[in-house]
Formats: sequence, structure tokens, C-alpha cells
Amino acid sequence: MQAEIVSVGTELLLGQIVNTDARFLSRELAELGINVFRQVTVGDNQDRLKEALNQSMARAELVITTGGLGPTSDDLTKESVVELLGYEMEVREEVLERIRDLYRRRDVKMPESNIKQAMFPPESRVVPNERGTAPGMILPSETGPGDHPVTVICLPGPTEELKHLWTETVRPYLRDRYGLDEFLYSRTLKVCGLGESTVEDRIDEIIESQEKTTVATYAKSGEIHIRLTTRVSSEEEGKSQVQPVETAIRERLGNYVYGSDDDTLEKVLGELLKERNLTLGTAESCTGGLLGNRLTNVPGSSDYFRTGIVAYANETKENLLGIPRRLLREHGAVSEPVARAMAEGLLQHEDLSVVASVTGIAGPTGGTAEKPVGTVYMGFAGEAATRCHHIQFEGDRQTIKHRTTQVVMTLLRRHLLDEEITN
Amino acid sequence: MQAEIVSVGTELLLGQIVNTDARFLSRELAELGINVFRQVTVGDNQDRLKEALNQSMARAELVITTGGLGPTSDDLTKESVVELLGYEMEVREEVLERIRDLYRRRDVKMPESNIKQAMFPPESRVVPNERGTAPGMILPSETGPGDHPVTVICLPGPTEELKHLWTETVRPYLRDRYGLDEFLYSRTLKVCGLGESTVEDRIDEIIESQEKTTVATYAKSGEIHIRLTTRVSSEEEGKSQVQPVETAIRERLGNYVYGSDDDTLEKVLGELLKERNLTLGTAESCTGGLLGNRLTNVPGSSDYFRTGIVAYANETKENLLGIPRRLLREHGAVSEPVARAMAEGLLQHEDLSVVASVTGIAGPTGGTAEKPVGTVYMGFAGEAATRCHHIQFEGDRQTIKHRTTQVVMTLLRRHLLDEEITN
Repeated sequence: MQAEIVSVGTELLLGQIVNTDARFLSRELAELGINVFRQVTVGDNQDRLKEALNQSMARAELVITTGGLGPTSDDLTKESVVELLGYEMEVREEVLERIRDLYRRRDVKMPESNIKQAMFPPESRVVPNERGTAPGMILPSETGPGDHPVTVICLPGPTEELKHLWTETVRPYLRDRYGLDEFLYSRTLKVCGLGESTVEDRIDEIIESQEKTTVATYAKSGEIHIRLTTRVSSEEEGKSQVQPVETAIRERLGNYVYGSDDDTLEKVLGELLKERNLTLGTAESCTGGLLGNRLTNVPGSSDYFRTGIVAYANETKENLLGIPRRLLREHGAVSEPVARAMAEGLLQHEDLSVVASVTGIAGPTGGTAEKPVGTVYMGFAGEAATRCHHIQFEGDRQTIKHRTTQVVMTLLRRHLLDEEITN
Repeated sequence: MQAEIVSVGTELLLGQIVNTDARFLSRELAELGINVFRQVTVGDNQDRLKEALNQSMARAELVITTGGLGPTSDDLTKESVVELLGYEMEVREEVLERIRDLYRRRDVKMPESNIKQAMFPPESRVVPNERGTAPGMILPSETGPGDHPVTVICLPGPTEELKHLWTETVRPYLRDRYGLDEFLYSRTLKVCGLGESTVEDRIDEIIESQEKTTVATYAKSGEIHIRLTTRVSSEEEGKSQVQPVETAIRERLGNYVYGSDDDTLEKVLGELLKERNLTLGTAESCTGGLLGNRLTNVPGSSDYFRTGIVAYANETKENLLGIPRRLLREHGAVSEPVARAMAEGLLQHEDLSVVASVTGIAGPTGGTAEKPVGTVYMGFAGEAATRCHHIQFEGDRQTIKHRTTQVVMTLLRRHLLDEEITN
């Protein structure tokens, strides 16, 4: 089946907003196995809108529109579709009542102009919108400008509303109507601590030996995602098909796979700390608080995260972390002995199970031949031992800060899993 | 003049990427005063690509394509355009040499397939690409499928390359070719500490009394942007037209305007601290390090930012900030006395000019009837005085954290400008 997407809105043609609706619908349609052959964007001009709609209806059997369902005189999508297919509209009382109700709840009288949002051809199906005033419409026609049957589905422009209508009504309708019992099941494994080419080398055979499941790697900022996708007819089937591939990949990559799907490093690390009843502190220099910020983005992180010190000035490293001035003078603030002393200093001062420390040069200035921008030392101290690492990062200031926190969390997790720093 | 944008790429039709190229070009064309009447997206199928190109060339005088300029057999945009307009291509030696050179520098032999990237009709102008192997093409034709002159400009898909070719070659070409001596000059004023409706109320008369300059407000996360735009023929003219409007707005909004264009709150605050030779420390609880992180995103922030404490646990508040246990017990950690004591505690402990503190409930749990999620207390301590504020925020955990740091930086800046906390 051929589908086209027609996006309506002058703000798109002016480049004021990016067309995320077309992207969302395209991906969803692809997952249903429906081919999108064209995306078209037009403004709020009725002649040009009708021309575009007419052409899409002539080519495709399914046309999905976004935008132009509001109450103003600029909003003309539904009217144009109905006119082109030769239908008439009438007020649907139950829809009008719902819109009136929305206004009543806000203590505002419904403007007359909203009535048009309740008008539909009797032949159409209304797509209820619980997130806004504009309902969608599904309008099937036995014939259209292409002398073949065509179904037009009109959806509102705001992405939140569009997604809601799609998931609740349109997707089930399409599955049912076109007998689409297959869909794309996918699972993402998240890897940190290995580069993309290393990941690919290690799972190369798995990628190539697959028949039903597609395995692809994607480089994200500071981590690699491995996406497993397969076309199935139930969640159960999807799970059972992906499971052995996931197991094989995890066998090759071990702990480098930190999680899946919605997991984040900070969430997974937090779960590990909680499970082991450990408390955490951070002693940051070049990351300036980003590590603490990321750790505390996780709801409930106060269960394990207790103390962060941002020791940006050397005096703060001395006063709050007890770093001997001699050490700073001899090795410089960006050095392994200082990273070690920062972690051990905070561990001793506060009642914590583990401390992660980081000191480095985020740039753009401050680099030297010996210690260029991107030089970072990290320390991980626990009751049993301290481990230090030196990494050379590349990128601008914020990239170096972000990647540093990725690596700090990855290494801390690995040291905890390997029971190297705790008793 | 009518323009259309044709984006080519199956990954767009599959919804794998969002079409930021179309957005960029649309905005740029609008700024040049060229109307975009349609955006079309097609995949890497030559028949459908040619059909779409033919239709756009029939309707518009200017067609800009993105994507499909690579070396593979899937990349067919240039070939299709040339064929539709009845031209022939030949190798341009200087272009081929440049591509060979790119490969040579990577120590790789240029694949034969890249030769097609060096082929152009003699009638066309090559748009040099210093960021990749695919040069662009400007191909003017006296007549096209619409029986009117049409110019087709083919640009590469990667946004970085597209922007580079646009700015360096295409925009100057269009200005010159179509005598577009006018362009949109714009300046953005950034406001923090007032809501959008208050900003609009205060500058209402200014907005309405403008003839040449358009003034519009935009609500961003935790701040308001006021965009002034005017159509002019030189930077000088733009500046002189916008200047009096900016002055009028600044008179109405005073210090609430923290900066303009590329300014950020953290940058502007940093400049103020540097100018006054002040050092800064932060004592954070609910923001978990985000405040320190934002302050240290500014290159050179080590000149004024010295110390941050993330006192997530009450014990840390006691140990590192010297908050009396009695105070925490009597008022709770989220209270004005504790915010005050956090700021004053760090100020006394370290050699700092000013300290900003923040304690609150970021949620989603931890709220009570008396102190719901979003309750935040802030303290600002300097040698002369301490000031405290209580704000009730709304939103999810990360929104509350972000907005809190916006307000902390805004208030600190205002207290410094008003010389309320420093001597």
C-alpha cells in the first residue's frame, strides 16, 4: 500500500518549526509495513492546499494530513478534503458538547468559531482528541481523483495531540482495516566503554548470521546503541525472537552492556548502589557539577547520593578535600595523585561507601604540550581500595564534560560489579 | 518569486531522521524575502524523484534540492535534474582533482564511483564543498516543464555541509542574481524574571506603534525572548532601525533584560563577576550540581567560580556547610533559615565574595501539603548582607531543576547590580 503525508502550516514553510509530525508518522507507518512514498508540506492557502491534497489522493491509497484543524478561518484541511471527495458536513452533537464542556471547565464561553471543529461528513469516523479541542477524522472514499479507493486521515498538528490520536485510534484502525497483523518489534542495548568499531568487530558474526532479526549499531554521545528489530505479529513473538540474539551479544560484550531501552547510565548505576546499600559522593573539578547533576536527575537518588564537592579552585581542593599543597605543586591539579587524593579525601571526611573524583582540562584554554585540552584523571575510592584512570578526550568544552561523566559512571559501575574498591 | 524545496532520501520517508535541512532552507529563504510554497520529500527511487522534481520545476521558478549527491548508485538527484532539463554532463577536472586529493590525504585510493561527483553540465555552476566530497550545483534554465525559466540548486544532505554551501555560495548568488538587496535583520533580547504576559503588557505600546520593526515575544524554558526583526539592505541600516526600539524596550524592562543574541545567563553573570573582581561559590541541594555545571560551561569560569557544594544529605549540610542540626530539625531542610545558613556557611568557610544557595523539592516524591513538589528556597550571601527568596515551581524533576538555576542566576545578577549583598 502507498501512503503520503501532507503537512499543513505556514510556520513550516517559513522554517519557524521543524516537521517532527512527518517524522513521527513516517516511522510509525514504516513499523506497520506501510510505505510512505512522499511527504508534502504546504501553507494555509486553500488553493495550494487543495492542489496538494488532490495530487496526493490521486497517487496514494492512504493520505494522512497533519495541521489545519483549528477553529480559525486559516484552518482549512478538513474542509478541503471533504470538498475534494464530494462529501457534505454536519454538526455532530456529541462532539460539539465535548468542546463546549472543555470551555465550560475553563469558565470561558465557547467561541462560535469552534463549531466547525464539530462538523464532519456522516460517512466519516471522528477520532476523539482528549488533549485538545480539534478531533481528527477518518474519511474513506470508494473513489477519488486517482480513480481508486482512497482513505484520508486528518490529524491535529501539535505533536502531543497527534501522537495521542495515532496511538489510541488511528494505529488500531489501520491494523484492523488493512489486516496489518505484523509490526516491527525492537529492543535497544546500550553500551558504554567500547568504541563503535570494537563493538562491531565483537558482534560481527552475530550481525551477519541473523535471518529474522536486524542488528544495527549507532554511535551516540559517549555511548553505543545496538538496535535489534524484527517483524512479528505479537509482543511475545518479538521477545522470543530477540532474546537469543540479545543473549549472544551480551556474551560477547559482557558488562559493557549497561542497560536497554529507557535505561540511562545514571539510572543503572543508581540501582546498583541501592541494591548494594552503598552511598556515593563526588569530587569534581573539570566537570563542574555535571556528574552530580546527572546522578540527581534520577528520582529517588537521595537514597544513595549524599555529597558532591566542586573543587574548581586549588584552595577548595586543599580546604574541603584535604589535598596537600605539596601534591598540587609537584604534580599539578590535573594528575593521578590529585585525582586519588580527591577521592580518598572526601571518602575520609564524609561517611560514604564510595567516592568518584575527576580532574582535567575541559578547555578551550589551559592545555599544555604535556597535558593538552581533554586530559582527564579519575579516581574511585572505596573502603577496600582506590583505582585511578587517565583518559584523553577530544571535543569542545561541553563535549569533554559530558563524555567525562559517561566514563566516570561506566568505570564506577565496573569497579562495583568487579568488587574492586568495596569490601 | 516562488520557490520549492525537494528533499531526497529514503531515511526521511522511513522517519529515521527529521528534516532539519528543509527547515533551515525555509527560514533562510524567508529571510531573503523568497516565498517557499511547498516542501516535498521523496526517497531514492528515480522515477518518483523525477516526477516530484518535474512537478516542482513546473510550479516554481526556484527549486532547491537537498540530498542524493553522494557517490553511490542510489544518489540520483543531480542526474535527474540534468536529464529533466535536457543537459549533458562532463567531468570537471578541477573538481575531480579536489576529490582525489581528499582521498589522498586519508591515504585511501578514490573509488571509481566518486567520479560522478565531479560531473556537471557546462552550463552549471559548481558550488564548492570544503566539508565533504559532494559539491553542489546551480543550474539555471531558460525554460523548464512549466514553460518559464527555472533555476535548480542541488545541495548535499548533511546539515553541516548544506549550511556551509548555503552561506558561502548560494545565498550570495541568490542575492546577486535576483537583486535581493533587502534581508531580514534581527536581534533577540533575552529576559529572565518576568512572565510572558507581563513582558507583553509592559511593551504592548512599543509592539503596536512599530511600522518597520516587528516585535514578537517567545516563551523559552525559564526565560522570554523578544525578537526584533526588520527588512533592510545593510547591517548598518538594521542596527540603526532596531536600536531605538531596543532602547525603548530596555527602558520598560530594566534589568530584567539580561542580554541579547548569543548571551546566556551564565555568561552574562560571569562577565559581571569578573568585571567586579568577585569570586563565587554555590551550595546546592535540590539542583544537585546543575548550577555549578551551568556556571562552568562558560570558558574561563575558573576566574570567578571557585567552590561548589552539593549537600544532598542532611549530614553533608551539617558537616560541610555548618548548618546546626537544630535548624534542620525545626524548619526542615527545605526552608528559608536553612537556605540562609547554607549560603552564609559556605561564605564563612571559604574565601569567597558571594555564595548562592538553593534547597527545595524537585520531586516527583517528597512533597507535602505544606511544602509541595516545586517548593524552592534560595539564599544569596555576600560580605554586606544575605537575601533569601521562596519560589514555587511547576513541572517535572528536570524542569524544576532547570528553572531553579535560571532564577538563581537571575536573582544573583540583580542583587549584584543593585549592590545589595556586596560592599
